[in-house]
Amino acid sequence: MITGYGIVAKELIKLLSEKQELLIDTYKISFKVTAIVGSKGMIYEEAGLDLPKLLQYGAGSTALMRYAREQRLSLQPPIFREDMLIECSPTDVQTGGAALEYIKNALQANMNIVSVSKGALVCAMPELLKMAKEKECKIKYSGATAAALPTLDIGEFSLAGCKITKIEGILNGTSNFILTKMSEENKSFEAALQIAQESGIAEANPDLDIKGIDSACKILLLANGLLGSQLTLEDIAIQGIMEVTKRDIQHAKINGNDIKLIASASLANRDVRVEVKPKIIKSDNPLIDVKGTNKGILFYTEEMGTICCTGGASHPKGAAAAALKDMINLYR
Amino acid sequence: MITGYGIVAKELIKLLSEKQELLIDTYKISFKVTAIVGSKGMIYEEAGLDLPKLLQYGAGSTALMRYAREQRLSLQPPIFREDMLIECSPTDVQTGGAALEYIKNALQANMNIVSVSKGALVCAMPELLKMAKEKECKIKYSGATAAALPTLDIGEFSLAGCKITKIEGILNGTSNFILTKMSEENKSFEAALQIAQESGIAEANPDLDIKGIDSACKILLLANGLLGSQLTLEDIAIQGIMEVTKRDIQHAKINGNDIKLIASASLANRDVRVEVKPKIIKSDNPLIDVKGTNKGILFYTEEMGTICCTGGASHPKGAAAAALKDMINLYR
Repeated sequence: MITGYGIVAKELIKLLSEKQELLIDTYKISFKVTAIVGSKGMIYEEAGLDLPKLLQYGAGSTALMRYAREQRLSLQPPIFREDMLIECSPTDVQTGGAALEYIKNALQANMNIVSVSKGALVCAMPELLKMAKEKECKIKYSGATAAALPTLDIGEFSLAGCKITKIEGILNGTSNFILTKMSEENKSFEAALQIAQESGIAEANPDLDIKGIDSACKILLLANGLLGSQLTLEDIAIQGIMEVTKRDIQHAKINGNDIKLIASASLANRDVRVEVKPKIIKSDNPLIDVKGTNKGILFYTEEMGTICCTGGASHPKGAAAAALKDMINLYR
Repeated sequence: MITGYGIVAKELIKLLSEKQELLIDTYKISFKVTAIVGSKGMIYEEAGLDLPKLLQYGAGSTALMRYAREQRLSLQPPIFREDMLIECSPTDVQTGGAALEYIKNALQANMNIVSVSKGALVCAMPELLKMAKEKECKIKYSGATAAALPTLDIGEFSLAGCKITKIEGILNGTSNFILTKMSEENKSFEAALQIAQESGIAEANPDLDIKGIDSACKILLLANGLLGSQLTLEDIAIQGIMEVTKRDIQHAKINGNDIKLIASASLANRDVRVEVKPKIIKSDNPLIDVKGTNKGILFYTEEMGTICCTGGASHPKGAAAAALKDMINLYR
């Protein structure tokens, strides 16, 4: 069952449709999409929706309505009774939006959750994790924490058994693009933001990115998922990049350093301290080489030293592939 | 059951001893070490060896003999009858050494394998994978493919469902140290090798490292594990770094590039092409920032773009933690 049928959900349908054989061959898993919920209601077919047909109609509720008409189905209110929910609704970090209700309903119905949107998790993660534990369900959310860049997986699988003492990340491509422009081309914040907006990287209202809120949401989810904290957005000190000046950056560069918007979570005694702020990054920190819209994450561990992961496509297909990965890892 | 009781195996015993509670709390897994095989024979206790006591005696067969004496055990020939084998014997990439027999015996006895040493896998991976499949057992070997640097896991978990088209890695710390010295301090190969030997980074006989054989073993295991090939060392074109000159490197650096010993595996039609050779790495390739004894790996995928992972401690504790991670991932 999929809630929200935007571009990422459509890309996921495409991957599922193309990779059916590969999933059986490699993982002995076969997924059937029985229900998709859009803003106008749910399409449902017990035997599984006809994915190639659905793909002809593009994304959004219009696509669902056209599919329903062609297949002689009627749109109905969402019913939660499948094995898994893939949550792809628009992110609302203020209230959690419809996604929060969808996830709660799905957990009530003992469904595993793969969340691509981050709003619901940011608003109510402790509550949702508690519900999931009671229902013996799992919640995965790679798509919500930097998508194609592996973040959660590294902590969960590659560092299994290790003590992670600190996580540092450049988790927002837009703000990193702006800081890179300021650093490499000596632009002011305003000029760099304008370039980002003109090239379609920053939105008309760039607040979520430049104020550090998007980064804060992501590091919050990572801290709660990997360091065992139960924090919400209010627990995080968040500082954006609006006040970073050309001079700050050029000053840092004298010693080969640079300024990056760093989202970090660190163990301090038994507490987990999470913050987002522009920081001077030393020349020997691998995050210094994360430039433009790229993202990166650095794990500090007691046993394995530091592990840095960078890259990952930031297009909708990358986010959809992150959701597919979570689906596979839930059932392998 | 553990075969080989060198420093890595001892570090693993230490981790298992320290992390017992954490493993139960986090993963609901409890490991019992019943048997350890050294060159003089096996110590065995059905109820589980007394790990803190064993740790008092250091590593090696002497430690096993002292433990046996204290516990009134007799050293016996290896018997394979546990759930899992952790293979830690000295690596022999020519014949596979004792490790090859240990792994075969263990698979015969339906045991899962975690291999820290790479010799047996390099020599006989297709055969061992076939045996494992017949017996429905699994073989994990993070410790043999760059240890604390996540390589296999990234492919297996973080890129689950993706098509990996190419893997490029700097997988040998010693040769990378030498090339970095040549690049940053304008040393000749011979001078840089000498520095590496004097600082204990290169061995007195550095052939495995500088001739690219160690890198070849690792990329071979990754290609066979992640790209589905069934290759052995003879299928790989291997070129070491002995003929790289100061001039080659300085020439590459004019354009901001550098020369690195790159182990690569790429899909070409239905074949997998694996090679190891010194290559010019462009300034925008994230592997260019992997310096000194550090290692790094770059995955090219169809769905998620490129993903780069660097770092990971190269000490025995890091290798032991990689084995522990494999053990957890086998049973979670």
